[in-house]
Order: sequence, then structure tokens, then C-alpha cells
Amino acid sequence: MGQTLTEKILADHLVEGELETGEEIGIEIDQVLTQDTTGTLVWLQFEALGLDEVQTELAAQYCDHQTYQFDFKNTDDHRFLRSAAGTFGAHFSRPGNGICHNVHKENFAAPGKTLLGSDSHTPTPGGLGQLAIGSGGLDVAVAMGGGAYYIEMPEVVNVRLEGELPEWATAKDVILEMLRRLTVKGGVGKIFEYTGPGVESLSVPERTTITNMGTELGATSSVFPTDERTRDYLERQGRGDQFVEIGPDEDAEYDDELVIDLSSLEPLIATPSMPDNVVPVHEVAGQSVDQVIIGSCTNGGYEDILPAAKMLEGREVDKKTDMIVAPGSKQASELLAREGWVAELMAAGVNFSEATCGACIGIGHVPASDSVSLRTFNRNFEGRSGIEDDNVYLCSPEVATAAAIAGEIVDPRDLAGELGDLEAPGVELPEAYSGSKVDLIAPDEAVDDGLVKGPNIGDVPLKDPLESELAGPALLKMADNITTDHIIPATQDILMYRSNIPKLSEFTLSRVDDTFAERALESDGGFLVAGENYGQGSSREHAALCPMYLGIQGVLAQSFARIHKANLFNFGLLPLAIDEETYERIEQGDDIEIVDDVSEAVSSGQEEFTVRVNDDWEFTATLDASEREREILAAGGKLSLTRQQYEESSGGAAPADD
Amino acid sequence: MGQTLTEKILADHLVEGELETGEEIGIEIDQVLTQDTTGTLVWLQFEALGLDEVQTELAAQYCDHQTYQFDFKNTDDHRFLRSAAGTFGAHFSRPGNGICHNVHKENFAAPGKTLLGSDSHTPTPGGLGQLAIGSGGLDVAVAMGGGAYYIEMPEVVNVRLEGELPEWATAKDVILEMLRRLTVKGGVGKIFEYTGPGVESLSVPERTTITNMGTELGATSSVFPTDERTRDYLERQGRGDQFVEIGPDEDAEYDDELVIDLSSLEPLIATPSMPDNVVPVHEVAGQSVDQVIIGSCTNGGYEDILPAAKMLEGREVDKKTDMIVAPGSKQASELLAREGWVAELMAAGVNFSEATCGACIGIGHVPASDSVSLRTFNRNFEGRSGIEDDNVYLCSPEVATAAAIAGEIVDPRDLAGELGDLEAPGVELPEAYSGSKVDLIAPDEAVDDGLVKGPNIGDVPLKDPLESELAGPALLKMADNITTDHIIPATQDILMYRSNIPKLSEFTLSRVDDTFAERALESDGGFLVAGENYGQGSSREHAALCPMYLGIQGVLAQSFARIHKANLFNFGLLPLAIDEETYERIEQGDDIEIVDDVSEAVSSGQEEFTVRVNDDWEFTATLDASEREREILAAGGKLSLTRQQYEESSGGAAPADD
Repeated sequence: MGQTLTEKILADHLVEGELETGEEIGIEIDQVLTQDTTGTLVWLQFEALGLDEVQTELAAQYCDHQTYQFDFKNTDDHRFLRSAAGTFGAHFSRPGNGICHNVHKENFAAPGKTLLGSDSHTPTPGGLGQLAIGSGGLDVAVAMGGGAYYIEMPEVVNVRLEGELPEWATAKDVILEMLRRLTVKGGVGKIFEYTGPGVESLSVPERTTITNMGTELGATSSVFPTDERTRDYLERQGRGDQFVEIGPDEDAEYDDELVIDLSSLEPLIATPSMPDNVVPVHEVAGQSVDQVIIGSCTNGGYEDILPAAKMLEGREVDKKTDMIVAPGSKQASELLAREGWVAELMAAGVNFSEATCGACIGIGHVPASDSVSLRTFNRNFEGRSGIEDDNVYLCSPEVATAAAIAGEIVDPRDLAGELGDLEAPGVELPEAYSGSKVDLIAPDEAVDDGLVKGPNIGDVPLKDPLESELAGPALLKMADNITTDHIIPATQDILMYRSNIPKLSEFTLSRVDDTFAERALESDGGFLVAGENYGQGSSREHAALCPMYLGIQGVLAQSFARIHKANLFNFGLLPLAIDEETYERIEQGDDIEIVDDVSEAVSSGQEEFTVRVNDDWEFTATLDASEREREILAAGGKLSLTRQQYEESSGGAAPADD
Repeated sequence: MGQTLTEKILADHLVEGELETGEEIGIEIDQVLTQDTTGTLVWLQFEALGLDEVQTELAAQYCDHQTYQFDFKNTDDHRFLRSAAGTFGAHFSRPGNGICHNVHKENFAAPGKTLLGSDSHTPTPGGLGQLAIGSGGLDVAVAMGGGAYYIEMPEVVNVRLEGELPEWATAKDVILEMLRRLTVKGGVGKIFEYTGPGVESLSVPERTTITNMGTELGATSSVFPTDERTRDYLERQGRGDQFVEIGPDEDAEYDDELVIDLSSLEPLIATPSMPDNVVPVHEVAGQSVDQVIIGSCTNGGYEDILPAAKMLEGREVDKKTDMIVAPGSKQASELLAREGWVAELMAAGVNFSEATCGACIGIGHVPASDSVSLRTFNRNFEGRSGIEDDNVYLCSPEVATAAAIAGEIVDPRDLAGELGDLEAPGVELPEAYSGSKVDLIAPDEAVDDGLVKGPNIGDVPLKDPLESELAGPALLKMADNITTDHIIPATQDILMYRSNIPKLSEFTLSRVDDTFAERALESDGGFLVAGENYGQGSSREHAALCPMYLGIQGVLAQSFARIHKANLFNFGLLPLAIDEETYERIEQGDDIEIVDDVSEAVSSGQEEFTVRVNDDWEFTATLDASEREREILAAGGKLSLTRQQYEESSGGAAPADD
């Protein structure tokens, strides 16, 4: 039986498990990327690992979300990230150099390689045959430390493309059509593999628009085979030597298949406020438009802005519509500036911005009240633009520009008919992706003398391996259904300390008992006691990391929420299940002592633990954990385990030059 | 006796008073400008005037401070301003089109005309022989309504320029030298008139750098005579027909004189944290630099950025230094883009921003902790950059760019010596200031159908003329030294409502009594009672406007702070002085009734008023007011007076087409 492209890349990187749908597999990661809102914690975790150097083939740190630097904490974060990249051997992309996915595609994306990134749109380079997956920060830190990435083997779905796109239909319409058909939940647990004769009609930038926005399907990743167009793209980027021909076997078997006839597509638009609210543009034509923005990792490339510039040449943005172009990368900006297109855009009435994620995440150019904004972005969730009750539409640069010219939503085919001299711009790649690389600082060009931590950047603690004896007070007894919002509130005034674990930890469980954090710090270890469903809610790692920082050793609960329980393992906290009678009997302040040799019991697979209370009475608690979870727990958490594995493989010697 | 240039322009516009130093004069205003942080209240006040149309020759509304639109309130403000400009006949400059002073200079500044603007750097067009003065918003609203602008006749100081600037010394060094000599208080109550043979060696953009930053001397304005260079500049802007030859008489007499020999100047720099902390650059050479920003109304023009681009061509920004260029106008951006310089700047490692005030007012690109920032701006007050304990230096674009190349402060002459091939860029004007005007919406191109007010934009009330009978309860009795911060707190969470008087008024005197605002609104009029020095602190007009909105009719105080007392007149509140005994005897809640015919008494110049308390006892209160202040008070405030004057002059008919 032949293999899918996904299976080929996974097989090539498999370190654990088998490629059976739904089974847990561990894969080796070749490249990692982080950005500025998730990167600080990744590097603090990596620092805690104690390694001198990144272990992946390549790591890259981008600054793209907070490029406006409207608070010194943003600028401090960027300075820390530069120093961390330099210290540990990652590439550093300066603020203003572009969005991580765009700059990575231009400089590093490589067919057949694996990429793990702490950003949900990491799958973008799938358009070049790279298997790229977004994950939490700890997974990235562990991968940087040389650890495998664990994931349930996804279903692989064949998306067979036939025909060619007609004029005015674009790659954006391909992925909008996918969203129209499958909805935002349609890709969960799946990897979409694009195949068929239509593939060769799409340039690499068009392919990456599709793979990028596969994230909105909920997909684990999306991937295209490579071909002459891939080789051509890499050559134009000066990286022809990195081309590898890779694709599925002809007799590959897929879990599912769907067909898209490109020639049947027309300009589509996602109406407010979900990316799958997709309709043909002409169905909403006539809607007045207040703001148009072209940019983002989906449609912020040279190939996306050039069509807008061509359409606007000699024309004007409607006077009641504000149009902003925020390029996805400085490579795009510089090329467009050198060819004169930036001047044309400005002359037409465009506010030409620095390269940034910016407005796509609600930072800058927030729409006015009761207004309509058309954006070439990937998400239009209500409120994401920075104002509640927003009206954000998602579309191609061509549809966005047509609206800017008309001052209202219009099918560009109709506008062309009306104007007479408006031609479909098509997709054009530059002869060569020339441009300065000065904003991309290579590891051997590092400029900082060690880590530079502003006052808001703290350390991340590393936990010691589980000890044989575990004892301490029941520091807090809680009711049922404690959420991760109870454990670490997500309000802006608290989350601004996400790079500062000591400071953030002061808010741990403050919504339950605001004396808790101080009491926990003063105590030499201790336990949390809870009822049913402890840790429900978000997947935030801080909800385990902060209690760990405060010295908590374990949680005794009637039951645990699934993801939070995984996080407890990852940060080395023992999650023990207790029955209702025991829960009722334990009181806050009781002395808890685990009678078994904890380290030995966890490692050996023991499920029942005897726990003694106040040297007075005993109960039985249960540990439900897989072998890998037990290994993580015994090591003191995932970071500690990775550090230990690294030390074993290298004999304990530091690998770096120093 | 001959006249100074200042006297000539003032004489040409004098509607009241005589040109004697220190005497109050009233002058006619030809042009007004407002920007987005002060403009909303100006237009709300103008709306309250009830006029259909701006009465000045020209009015222009710019959007430059909040171009990043971080909050929907910014975007709503911009939308309101566009609708107000269109409704009342002002030009509207879109966000991203540039800083008010730059765009005004390019499009409207005219020799011999007067300009009033609600921004402290309004004097910029003095470089073209325009007499331009910054003022509060109410003065601008009144001027737009056709009212005169009142000011004490300033001293006129002759700044005689001799010689020519040597290589690497710039116009910025001229104004830094002025600051070094005179300090930031040296210009208070003065207008600086630049004369002498050195004038002709300076281009108009260099002259406007000097007049712009005259504000940092505390000057009322700064002005240059016009000459062939002025004519040439206007011709390149396509406005040669607006040239007027204007200058001082040869035998003009000045209040003071100083001489600057341009040929003796060298690159200067203002060290943290005051614009007059000026030293030669070489004295601080070697200081490591983290951030360099070129831009602002002082040095953000084409002629300012071009030298930086020339210096950077084929070179790179040091990897440990971030360099941002934020052009002062889109005219500058577009020209630089069209000539290829934007591409060169990007290639050198510059983050090229949209045209904005931005970082100069602490919005965006806030420096990192414990870092050094070199900026071509006009102010480096501590904390203004957005972070306390900042280290901001002010210098020319040449000095800033030299630092960006070297990564540390360096005298550009030394850097040129070191590099060998770095030439002094000099000052170069474009052949023609070409470029689109699409972002400047003329009054006859207005796009909005009436005023568009978002939920945070309220109305400004207009007070009726003073009545004959004035009576009401003593709503609040306060102690001595109540500040404007007590009356309207200046914290960010409250000042965000500066366009929303009904909402802002809820906070009136809340720091004294948080039930006050509600009680005042419920009461049908009433009085405030205070001890000594009522209203000390800032000049904020809201401290009178908000009590007026709440229905307060007068303030009985032992004494008043000077500026706040003027604001009480301006908003139609009667400020009566009482003695200590009376202050002690009045109690909060007492019924206050002024026995005299108040309207008649105020208008006739009566100073002593009889006040009856609780129909039980009486005291005498004193009104100390000039004839003009009495006129304002009787009319119900300055806005009401202006409206009344307008109605008299036009016979009550609306002047607008509709």
C-alpha cells in the first residue's frame, strides 16, 4: 500500500509509535519558530532546561505581533527575545521585518522537513511540502531541547484539485470554499493533503494562502506536494538547493477525500463573524464599507499586495473608505517599494503600514463603532478586531481592493464591467525575491552579551525529579468545577505578566482565596484539594506552572479536566484521584503524607497510593497515567525530563562551544 | 519708527487694542487648524455655537496623533472629525496623511496670514512668514466662529542670523543652540523674529524646523521674513500664487536682540530629559544607542529623511540598534518612495512607518527599560516616550543616522572621517512636491451625511445669557487650594472621555464628594463654595465646562487661581470673591440668592453684589472682571458671546447655502 505525503514525512521523523490513525506518535522536529507573544515563555522554559544551545536544525524567533511597541513591556520582550535567540543559537527577526509565517516561508521553509511553532498558523509552509504544526510553547521549548513532539496520528484527507481558477477567483476563494463546505470544525484531527491536476496551476504563494488558513478548519496541518513550481519559488528566493521532490504515492490511501473544481470557483467572502460564514461576493454587494485592510500571514505577501496596487494604479480609494496595507514582510515591502508600487498605493490613498500582524489581532486600526471592515485576514471572530459587535468580512485582496475603489462591497467582475478598463491582475512572482537580510540576525551575528531581562521578565523554575517521600499541608480545599480562570485569571491586567512567572504566580487561585499564593510560598511544599472536574476550561499551561512555582507538589481531586491533568504531568505535579468520602473528610490545613515511595511507585506503574492524614487516618488515592506521563512526572515535568534525556544522550557534557 | 514683521502682520489683523507690549489685543484669524486629540472638543464647541459654516478663510482638521487607532474611540473620533469638517466647511486630512504642521505647511501656510491652532507646535509655518499661534480649543472654536483671538502683545525679539551652516550642522542645531542659550523658559511672552544675512542661506524646510521648535523656548511664535526661497518653495508646492513679500522695516525696533553666527555651529544634541540640556554631540560620543527614530513635525519632512536615506545607502543600521522612520506627511513618504529612497531605507534595516506623530507623544515604539533612544523630535521630557526613567536625546536626522550606523552616539564628522566615503548629505528640495492630494478631502468633497458621533462622543452645552435673577443651593462647600485635578481628574481612565462632556461631567469634583455630580444634575442650578486659591493647577477648560454642564451658576470663593478664573468667565460661571467670615458662615445646602439684577450689574461694571442666604442673612461679594470678561459672562460664556456677535453682524440669517 502506498503512502500519503504526510505519512512519508512522518515516517521519516518517527521516533515513537506507529502511523495508525488515533495512535500517539512521537516525531523528531527539524525546525521551530516562535513569535513575540508566545516566545518569551518558550525561551524562559528553554533557559530552565539548562541547555547551552538549540538542538533542532534551525530555530527562528520573530517579532510580529507587538511591532508597534505601545508599551515598554513589548519593547523589553523584543530585546529579551533578541538576546535569547543570540544566546541559544536561533535566528532573530527584528520587529518590522515581518510576520513569522511570511519570513519563515521566505527564508527557511524546506520540503520534507518538520516544523513546530508556537503560533496557530504555523502550517503555512505546507505549501512548500513542509509538515508544519502549531503547538503550545512548552512543546516548542522541548523540541528545541531535542525532545520529540507527541501527537495523535491525524486522519489524512485528500483534497483533490481539478481545473484552473478563472479570472478574479483566487487561492483565498479555494480555502473559503473549504470553509464553506467543512465549517470551522471540519478539520479537527485531520491533515489536508492537496493533490490532483489543479495543484500545478497554483504558485507557491497561492498554496501557502491555502495551507495557512487551513487552521481555520481546525486542521492539524495542510500540505502540498512539491513540483517544478516549488523549485522555481525556492530558486527565486535564492534557495534552489533546498528543493526536494516529495509527494504521495500514486496508490496512497486516504482516510477521506473531497474534490474541488477550481474552474467553478468565484469570488467568495466570509461574512461576520465566523470564517465559515462564506457566500459569493455578489450576494452581499452594495454593503457600504468603512475600512479595508490588506495584509496578514494569509494575504500579506508581495503576490497579494501587487494585485491591489495594479488595481489602484491611476485610481483612488473612495473618500468614505479608509484603506490600510500592512505587508506581511519587509521583503514584500522592499520589493514593492523598489518597483514603485508603494508610491502608487500611497498616491491612491492607501495608508501604508510597517510589516506587522497588527490589526489582525486587534492591535491598531480597530474599526469604528457600527462600521464595516473588509480584511484579507483569516479570522473574523466577533470582537477580535478590538471592538465588540464588529462587522468584519474576510476576502481576497482583489475583492478588498474592489470594495475600496467602490466604497462598497462589489464583485470585482462587476466592477471591471462597470469601469471598463479594470483588468484581473492575476498572480505574478518577482523575477527574484531580492532584498536585504539585515533584519534577520543569524546566530553567528548575535549582538547581546547574554540574556537581557527587563523588569517584567522573570525566570521559569525547573522542578527536581519526584522524591521518594512526599508530604505537606493541604494548603487549599476547593469545591467542584474549579476552572483555569480560577487558577490563573485571564484578565489583561494579570496576563500582561505572562513572561513573569514569579509575579503572575501571586495571582494563583486568588479568586478562591487571595491569601493562597503567599501561604504556598511560605510553606515548604503542600497539596491542593478539590472536588469534581478540577481545572476545567482553557488549556493554559500557567495554571499548572504557577502552582508548581509556588511549591505545590500534588493535587488531590475527585476528578480532573483532561487537558489540565496533562498540564499537571507536564509541570511535575502529582494528580491523585480521591473518592467523595475522602474529599469530605480532608480539611484545609491537614498534614498529608504519601506513605509509598512515590518516585518508585510512579515509575513502576503503581496505581493505588496510600495517603496518611495528620498521622491519624489513611485513605487510598489513584494515579491514572500512561507510561509516558509517568516518565514525565518522575522526572519532575516535561522540561526536566527533556533535560535529563539530553544529559543522558550527550553524557552530561555541554555541547556548545563555550 | 519702522515696524517689525510681527507688528506688520498684527496691525493688518488688529480688531481691538494697541500694539503695546503687554497690552491685550484682539486679532482676526485667517486660518485655523486642529488635530485629532484636541479637535473633537473644538468641533463640539463649534456645533454648540449653532453656526452653519466656518467663518475663517480656511480651516483644516488633521488626524495625526492617534493614527494607529489602538482603540475604537480613536477611529470613532476620526470619523466624527471627518463628518464635522465636511458639515462645517473645513478640509479633512485622513489618518495616515501626516502631521498637521507638515501637511498644513505643504498645502495651506501663507505669508502674512494669521493661523490659530489647537496644538502647541502651530507656529511651524512661521518659516514661511505666517504668524501662527497655538491656543486652547475654545479659542480655536471661537475663531472658527468669526471671533477675534485675544492675547497680550508679546515682546518681539530679533534673532539675527549671520554666516552659513558648515557641513553636518543643520537647522536643528540652530534651534538647539537657541535652547542652550535661552532655556525652555527663555521665550515666554515673546515672538522670535529671525533676520539677518544668514536667513537666505536657509531653505523653507530648515526655517520651519526652527520655528516649529521655538515652542520649546516657550515662545508665543517664531517667524521668518519671506524671500526668493519662500517663493521658490511655494512654487515647488504648486502654490506660487500665494507668495507675498513680507519682512520687517529696516529701522524696526525690537524689544531685544541676539545674534547667532551659523558658521560657528556644530552638531548639537539635547541630553535627557529636557530640550535645553544641549551639548555638542562629541561630548556624549560613545554612548550606546538602542533606538533611533526619525520623524515628527520638527524633522519628519522629505528634506529631513532624504539625508538619512543618503547616509544609509549601501550601509546598514547596527544590529543592536532599532531604527524607525515615521514620515511627517504622506507627501514626504510618496516622494521618497517614488525616488527609490524608501526601498533604500528598508534595505538598510529601517522600520518604515506610516506618517504619524506616534512615538513623539508616547504612542508606539516606546523605548525598552534602561535603554537609550535618539530622536529627531522636539521634546524629551521624562516619561513622554511612554516609559518612566527614559533616556531620550534630541538631535538632527544626520546625528541620529550616524548613531544608527555606529550603534552609539558619534559626531557625524568623526564618523565621516572614520568611514572615508560618508559625505555630508546637505539639504535638497525635490524638483516639485508632486504627490496625490487624495487624502486631503476638501469641503466641497464632503462624504458624510451630517455629524457622525460614536457612543463616546457627546454634545457640548451652550449656556444662556446671564439672567437677572440668580438663586440656588450651595451644592458643595470645599476647603482651600482645590485644584483642577480635584475638579476633573486627569487620569487616563477619565480623560478618555474628553469628547464626551456628559460622561466626563460624572467625575466632576468626585475626589471631593462623589455624590456631587448627581446632586448637581438633579438640582435646578446652584453654587460652589470654596476657600482660598480655588482652581489652581492646570489650564484645562473641562474644569469649568463640566460644572457648567451640571448647571452650576457661580462660584463663591475666598480667592481664585488666575487661569481657572478666566475659564469660569469663558464658560459663563460667575466667580464672586467672599471674605473669610462669610466663607465660614455659609453651609453646604444653604439657599443662595443674589439680590441685585445680575445681568444688569455684570454688564454695567458693578463690583459689589448683595447675596442673601436662606432668606435670613446677607453678605457682600465682589466681582473683579475686565470689561471684556463682563461681556463674556453676561452673554453666557465665550461661545455664547461669539454666537451672539455673529448673529448681530449677519442680522441673524444663516450664511450657509442651506
